Amino acid sequence: MSFPPSAAMAAALTEARAAGARGEVPVGAVIVAPDGSIVASGGNRTRELNDPTAHAEIVALRAACATAGSERLPGHDLVVTLEPCAMCAGAISLARIARVYYATADPKSGGVDHGARVFSHATCHHAPAVFGGIGETAATALLTEFFAARR
Amino acid sequence: MSFPPSAAMAAALTEARAAGARGEVPVGAVIVAPDGSIVASGGNRTRELNDPTAHAEIVALRAACATAGSERLPGHDLVVTLEPCAMCAGAISLARIARVYYATADPKSGGVDHGARVFSHATCHHAPAVFGGIGETAATALLTEFFAARR
Repeated sequence: MSFPPSAAMAAALTEARAAGARGEVPVGAVIVAPDGSIVASGGNRTRELNDPTAHAEIVALRAACATAGSERLPGHDLVVTLEPCAMCAGAISLARIARVYYATADPKSGGVDHGARVFSHATCHHAPAVFGGIGETAATALLTEFFAARR
Repeated sequence: MSFPPSAAMAAALTEARAAGARGEVPVGAVIVAPDGSIVASGGNRTRELNDPTAHAEIVALRAACATAGSERLPGHDLVVTLEPCAMCAGAISLARIARVYYATADPKSGGVDHGARVFSHATCHHAPAVFGGIGETAATALLTEFFAARR
């Protein structure tokens, strides 16, 4: 995959906008195969599905695993518009994702570079490489607009 | 719910045995409503479903939320045969589970009292009360037998 993964982040941002239009917190994610193709994408669906686990990353990971017929996705990358929370970081590790690219850092709820820092412990048996701040401006603007509109 | 929640843990153990019989790591979980009734139960299904997120806790949480028509389960307890991992701990927090009762501690992969200790950070916006070692002997024996048979 090219670096920075701008096409994949653009696709994740499209998913985030669609989530926002559905009344969800606007976060989107895509899974990129080793050949650079996007094999799954997803946006937040927690409200629609009444499912606290339906964060964009989990939606995309489950779809990619179902397509691959495997609970692991070695060599695959996850590109997401917001720093993953602890739940999503745990799922990313379990799926053996190779690299995580996220746009906006999340000091309040993030679990990768903040808080639980899930990948940094000995109990985390697979830690992906992490690249933050990729395509940050557009993703941050989307979140800021969303929360401003709700206040 | 009575303390210790022996009927709920027995039900979780039944789920764990069923998971083991399906070739999954034998872990089971149940969700208990404020009135003491078991509203959902689940066992590990990661292999069967090719879904790295299909840990017993997530299976049970998703089922309980779907039934409740809500992404949050305030006042509900989660009873599980093994200390939850970081992913499951994150999901438990997002679902606003009131109390977590687990049987066997998991120093290698646990994310509650080991490793990421997900509930202990400021980024964790809801931390349940946690009670470990509940009904430990039977759950630990089940896991020990399972892994011994695979070596």
